[in-house]
Amino acid sequence: MPKQSAAAMAHPNIAFIKYWGNRDRELRIPANSSLSMNLEGLETKTLVRFDSELAQDEFILNEEPASHEAAGRVTAFLDVVRGMANLPERASVASKNNFPSGAGVASSASAFAALALAASRAAGLVLDTNALSRLARRGSGSASRSVPDGFVEWHAGENDADSYAESVAPADHWALRDCIVVVSEAHKAIGSSEGHDLADSSPFQEARIAGAQERLENCRRAIVERDFATLADVVELDSLMMHSVMMSSMPALFYWEPATLGVLKAVRAWRADGLEACATVDAGPNVHVICPEAQASEIVEQLTRLPGVLRVLESSVGGGAKWLEL
Amino acid sequence: MPKQSAAAMAHPNIAFIKYWGNRDRELRIPANSSLSMNLEGLETKTLVRFDSELAQDEFILNEEPASHEAAGRVTAFLDVVRGMANLPERASVASKNNFPSGAGVASSASAFAALALAASRAAGLVLDTNALSRLARRGSGSASRSVPDGFVEWHAGENDADSYAESVAPADHWALRDCIVVVSEAHKAIGSSEGHDLADSSPFQEARIAGAQERLENCRRAIVERDFATLADVVELDSLMMHSVMMSSMPALFYWEPATLGVLKAVRAWRADGLEACATVDAGPNVHVICPEAQASEIVEQLTRLPGVLRVLESSVGGGAKWLEL
Repeated sequence: MPKQSAAAMAHPNIAFIKYWGNRDRELRIPANSSLSMNLEGLETKTLVRFDSELAQDEFILNEEPASHEAAGRVTAFLDVVRGMANLPERASVASKNNFPSGAGVASSASAFAALALAASRAAGLVLDTNALSRLARRGSGSASRSVPDGFVEWHAGENDADSYAESVAPADHWALRDCIVVVSEAHKAIGSSEGHDLADSSPFQEARIAGAQERLENCRRAIVERDFATLADVVELDSLMMHSVMMSSMPALFYWEPATLGVLKAVRAWRADGLEACATVDAGPNVHVICPEAQASEIVEQLTRLPGVLRVLESSVGGGAKWLEL
Repeated sequence: MPKQSAAAMAHPNIAFIKYWGNRDRELRIPANSSLSMNLEGLETKTLVRFDSELAQDEFILNEEPASHEAAGRVTAFLDVVRGMANLPERASVASKNNFPSGAGVASSASAFAALALAASRAAGLVLDTNALSRLARRGSGSASRSVPDGFVEWHAGENDADSYAESVAPADHWALRDCIVVVSEAHKAIGSSEGHDLADSSPFQEARIAGAQERLENCRRAIVERDFATLADVVELDSLMMHSVMMSSMPALFYWEPATLGVLKAVRAWRADGLEACATVDAGPNVHVICPEAQASEIVEQLTRLPGVLRVLESSVGGGAKWLEL
């Protein structure tokens, strides 16, 4: 007899080695492995209830009925869960983020990680972390990385069975901070899902993929050894390479704003002056400045003074997704 | 008996297909062929006089003694000419640009093109356009393109004999304008010569080179057929690819300023709205906006209003380098 209701929480994550482009669009098998850090303090909480009385799925997002597009994506995900559990019932899903959509952090990773935990348990499935990560991946690739704890590597794999994320170090391994620099609150013109499809149109994607595993191994080693200088170089290079692919794809995707570049250049200059900080940018204009805890307050203060910076949000290393008591 | 004095004039040029990285550093044999447009109205004029009384070369730049570095580069170039002419005499060189160094245009191309014409004639050499272009290349790679007329292709070649530029269309073939958008007058931190040496350290240089010939052929065809839409796409892609190589080289070279990116994005938006304009950036922060003559005044007016734009200079298609009467 399935438990009909369950709730879960997950953090978003910031990728140090980026995911851009799929080998299999439908299953979201990525073109390369990626590596990220979960973001403490930022949370999506999701409640799922399967109910035989429902004629269709219902999706309430931040206390309002979700858009048609968002609801469709949730239903497609629930179909995967129903298929696994052999369950015909429709579900009611209520999800809430404690961070605004203009906070500089995409919510799809935490959303589908929390949904994977809540929906699978509500459907009566008993899944381990690997299986939950694989399931979350079906909703949003980066969601696979929000399932395990702390610093997380998503093994690209080649099929649904071997494409999952696992922790490379727990949240308390290294006290890093992510200073999230918001330079724009505008909704991105081209979402990541569409963007992934354009990756192969760039003359640089092949070279980006070819070197991704080496960059990931350097990054993983830098994390394990708490080697900030190595981390900084590889994080900035990998981010720059993704944006080069984006800007040279057809059509070209320019996610950077002028203020984005200003922050990137400032962080490089500060690092040249001895400050431990590096910058990375996802598929949007906002900048994530990574630094050791000890330097965070100085860096946040300096970031706040840069032209075009609306605000800076601070986050530390977060744990994995978890179920919540009802 | 050599003519002991000669003078010449050359225009700078803006590359549509960029030169970045050398196959042979000493001879300046480039990693890929490139294509440019000479810039009318901007001129370097140079007078060379070989004189047996001189104990060493003298170089007056813009009516002042040149820096030690600039003088050394001129002497190295004159050594090539002396070697060709079997001439032992030192020379006095006076060169003048009618555009300031903060105008958004590098002067090395026009400088070495004018110097190649003046010095070779003063040394008694009789060189055709190909040979002059090859000689100019020894001073600065892009100077090879300032020797022929109008729209110019520099064949990369493999050695000193086959690496030269020639005109693909005369200056009056297509009434394009270059609206030179100055966003910074600061001297660039890393000059092009040093930058070329870093090109191979980028994981993207190989892909940039691999596609360069195809881009060049598309660009050449667009010029021959006066096909602005094709020109715009390939010019922007090629510029973006060079800057991706720069930003991903080790150490990374960030020539763009925030205002550079603002101009690039504005031009893309205007083009999406039907305006014929495209943008390209050399190894510096300023933006060259290329457009048909008919749209230039509207574009200059709009450019002037963008944040961070100091001024906009307009140039049309220039002829080749030529000797001046003394």
